[in-house]
Amino acid sequence: MQFSHKIVESRLSPMRKFHTRAVAAAQRGVKLYHLNIGQPDIVTPPAFFDAVKRFSAPTLAYAPSAGVPELIAAIQRYYDNLGIHYGSDEIYITAGGSEALLMVFAAILDDGDEILIPEPYYPNYHTMTSLTGASIHPIPTYPEEGYFYADRDRIEREITPRTRAIMLTNPGNPTGTVLTPEEMRLIADIAKEHDLFIVSDETYREFVYAGEPLESMGRFDDVADNVILIDTVSKRFSACGARVGCVISRNHELLDHIMKYCQARLSVATLDQIASAALYDVDPGYFAAVRDEYHIRRDTVMHKLSQIPGVVCECPKGAFYVMAALPVDDAEKLQYFLLDEWNDHGESVMFAPGEGFYGGSGKGKNEVRLAYVLKQADLERAMDLLALGIEAYNKRQGK
Amino acid sequence: MQFSHKIVESRLSPMRKFHTRAVAAAQRGVKLYHLNIGQPDIVTPPAFFDAVKRFSAPTLAYAPSAGVPELIAAIQRYYDNLGIHYGSDEIYITAGGSEALLMVFAAILDDGDEILIPEPYYPNYHTMTSLTGASIHPIPTYPEEGYFYADRDRIEREITPRTRAIMLTNPGNPTGTVLTPEEMRLIADIAKEHDLFIVSDETYREFVYAGEPLESMGRFDDVADNVILIDTVSKRFSACGARVGCVISRNHELLDHIMKYCQARLSVATLDQIASAALYDVDPGYFAAVRDEYHIRRDTVMHKLSQIPGVVCECPKGAFYVMAALPVDDAEKLQYFLLDEWNDHGESVMFAPGEGFYGGSGKGKNEVRLAYVLKQADLERAMDLLALGIEAYNKRQGK
Repeated sequence: MQFSHKIVESRLSPMRKFHTRAVAAAQRGVKLYHLNIGQPDIVTPPAFFDAVKRFSAPTLAYAPSAGVPELIAAIQRYYDNLGIHYGSDEIYITAGGSEALLMVFAAILDDGDEILIPEPYYPNYHTMTSLTGASIHPIPTYPEEGYFYADRDRIEREITPRTRAIMLTNPGNPTGTVLTPEEMRLIADIAKEHDLFIVSDETYREFVYAGEPLESMGRFDDVADNVILIDTVSKRFSACGARVGCVISRNHELLDHIMKYCQARLSVATLDQIASAALYDVDPGYFAAVRDEYHIRRDTVMHKLSQIPGVVCECPKGAFYVMAALPVDDAEKLQYFLLDEWNDHGESVMFAPGEGFYGGSGKGKNEVRLAYVLKQADLERAMDLLALGIEAYNKRQGK
Repeated sequence: MQFSHKIVESRLSPMRKFHTRAVAAAQRGVKLYHLNIGQPDIVTPPAFFDAVKRFSAPTLAYAPSAGVPELIAAIQRYYDNLGIHYGSDEIYITAGGSEALLMVFAAILDDGDEILIPEPYYPNYHTMTSLTGASIHPIPTYPEEGYFYADRDRIEREITPRTRAIMLTNPGNPTGTVLTPEEMRLIADIAKEHDLFIVSDETYREFVYAGEPLESMGRFDDVADNVILIDTVSKRFSACGARVGCVISRNHELLDHIMKYCQARLSVATLDQIASAALYDVDPGYFAAVRDEYHIRRDTVMHKLSQIPGVVCECPKGAFYVMAALPVDDAEKLQYFLLDEWNDHGESVMFAPGEGFYGGSGKGKNEVRLAYVLKQADLERAMDLLALGIEAYNKRQGK
C-alpha cells in the first residue's frame, strides 16, 4: 500500500513536537509556563454554556450543511456593525476557521498551483495547502522591519503563472502585524490586476491596539468576487473548543462549489452552533475589556523583551503574538535545553521556535513566537524565565 | 480566477436537490413524510445532554488533536466488548464519520488513483474521492440479487494498477446489505493479495436483524495493516448533530500521516466529545431496544413494498435503508410529481431517487432508497402514500 504524495508532503505541527519532552519535564516536577500555543486563558462568556444548557430537543439532529440560521444571522449582525452587509446565503458555518480554510483551498488550488503567503506564516497553512497538491510561495519578510510585506514590488515579483491566491492573516499570526487600510487597498489592487483570490483570515480582528477598529478586506466592493473571509469564534470569544468558524464571500460561484464540500461533511456540531449564536449577543464592552487585557499583556512582553540584550523585535499592533529574533544560535536547541536541562526554582518556559513558521526553508532559526495568553503575573514570570534561560543557554554554549 | 478541477468534479448531494420543491409543497400546506434522509427520530440518550450540562471549566479550550482521552477509552471498551482490542493511540476522534473519510481518502488517494466501491453507494463518497483527485471505480450490483457484491471474480475484474483501496459500507447504505463473516474474509484475502487498503465504514453495525452480532473487518489480524475502520456515534446513539466519529487502524504509518491532518484542523468540538464518551456508558439494553424498533420498521417497509405490484426488492439485513426498484420509468420524475402535483388528503411522501447512488452513470433510474426513520404509524402512512402516488403517477403517464 502507498500513501498520497499530498499527505507525505504535509507536516506535523512544529508547535506540537516538544510535547513529549514537556510531559517528561512536568513529570520531573518542573512547572512550565506555556507561551507556545494560542490557547487563551480568558473565560468563555457564560452565554455559551447557558445556551447549551437550554437546548431541549429530544434528538440531537444534523444542522443544515450551510449552518444554523440563528448563527448565520448573528454573524450578519456582527458584520452589519462593521458596516459590511452579507446576505444569509453568503456565510457558511464551518468547524472552526481551520475547516473553512480546508474548504477554500480545496476549491481554488490544484496540483502544482501556488498560493502567496507572507512568511513567517501559521504552520497549518502548509498542511492545508499540501493536501490540495499545491504549494505555498512565500513573500519574504524580516524581523527588523516588523515583518512588513505590503509592498507592491515585494508581492508582485513573487507572482507566477501558477499563482491562484494571496493569503493574508490580519492581524497576523505569528507576527502580530496589522495592515493599514491603505495597505489592504494595495493588496486588493494587486489581486484584481492579477486575477487572484484574496483569502483573508481575520480571526484576530478584535485584537488591535492602535486605537481604531480594524478594516476588513470585505470592505472593498470592487474586489467582492476575489475576497474570501475566514472567521471564527475561537479567539474572539475564547471558545477555541467550540470548533465554530465560517467562510464568507460574495462570489456565488465559489460558494456553490464550497457547498459540495459542506454537504459531503453533512454539518457542523449543532449544539456548538446554537451556543455560538448566543456569544454574538454579549455586551459590546466584552470586546473592549478583552482587548485591554491583551494590550497590557503585549506591553508586558515588549517591555520584558527590551530588557534582554540582543533581541530584535518591532512592537506588533495586533493578535496576541510577538515574533522576535533572540540572541541565540538556535531557538529549537534553546527550547530543548529549557525542557531537558534547565529550570529556575523548578520552573521553565515554552515558546514556539521560529523555524516552523518558515516552511522548512531553514530561516527563522533564532526566532520565536510568544503567545501572550497568560495572566499578568504568570506572563511576567514566564518572560523572566525566558531571559534567565537564554543567559544560561548561552553560557553553556560558551558564549 | 479559476476553481480546482477537484471541486468542479465534485457534486451536490442528490438527496438535497428536492429541498426547494419540498419547501414549496410545505408552504402550500402539504404534509410531507420524509423517507429521504438518514436522520432518525430515535431519542438521543439523555446521558449526552447530562454530560454537557455538567461541564464546568470556565474556558472552552481546544481538545487534543487525536481526541479527548475519555472518549478514546470509551471506544476502546466498546471494541473490547466485540473482542477486538485497539490501543489508545490507534483511535483518532474525528468530526463525524465524514471527516474520518475525508482524512483517510486524503492520506491514501492521489490524482488518477481509484477506489473500488460497490455501486449503488453513499453519494458523499463521490465528493470525498473527487476532492483528492481520485475517482470511484464501481463494483456493479443488481436489485434482483439484493445488491450482492462479495464475489471474488466480480471484485477482482475491477482492480486496475491504479486501485489503492476497497471501500465497504457494512451494513450498507443505501442497500442495507450485510456481509457474512465468510464474505468479509474473502474481501480481506483479495485486499491482501492485491495490496489494497480496506476502508470499512461500520456506521450501522448495531443495526442488523438476522440475530447474530455483526463481524468487523477489524477482526482479521493478518490484514491489520490494510484495515481502516470508520465509526461514529451519529446513528448508533441517534446523535447525528454531535459530529463525533473516529478513524481506527493498526497501521501506524497511516496513523502518523493522518495525524498531520488532525493537527491541521486542531481538534474536534470539546463538549461533544465529552458528551459522546458518556453515550458509551448507556445500558446495553439500549442497543437491543433500538435494534428491535428498526427491525419492526424494516418489516413494515418490506410488507408494504410487497403489496405494490412490480416492485423488485430483496429483504435487506441491516442499516435502516431499503433500496428497491419501483414500477415507474423514472423515480426522480415520480418525486417531482409527488411534490408538485399530487397529494392524498393533503399529504405526500419523499424518498431518495436511486440515480444519485450510481455516480451519474445513468443507472438506478427506477430505484429509490427508503430510510425507515419514522415511527410505526407515520411509516405505514408514508408507504401507503408511496403506493398511491405510484398508481397516480403511472395513470398520468398513460400506463
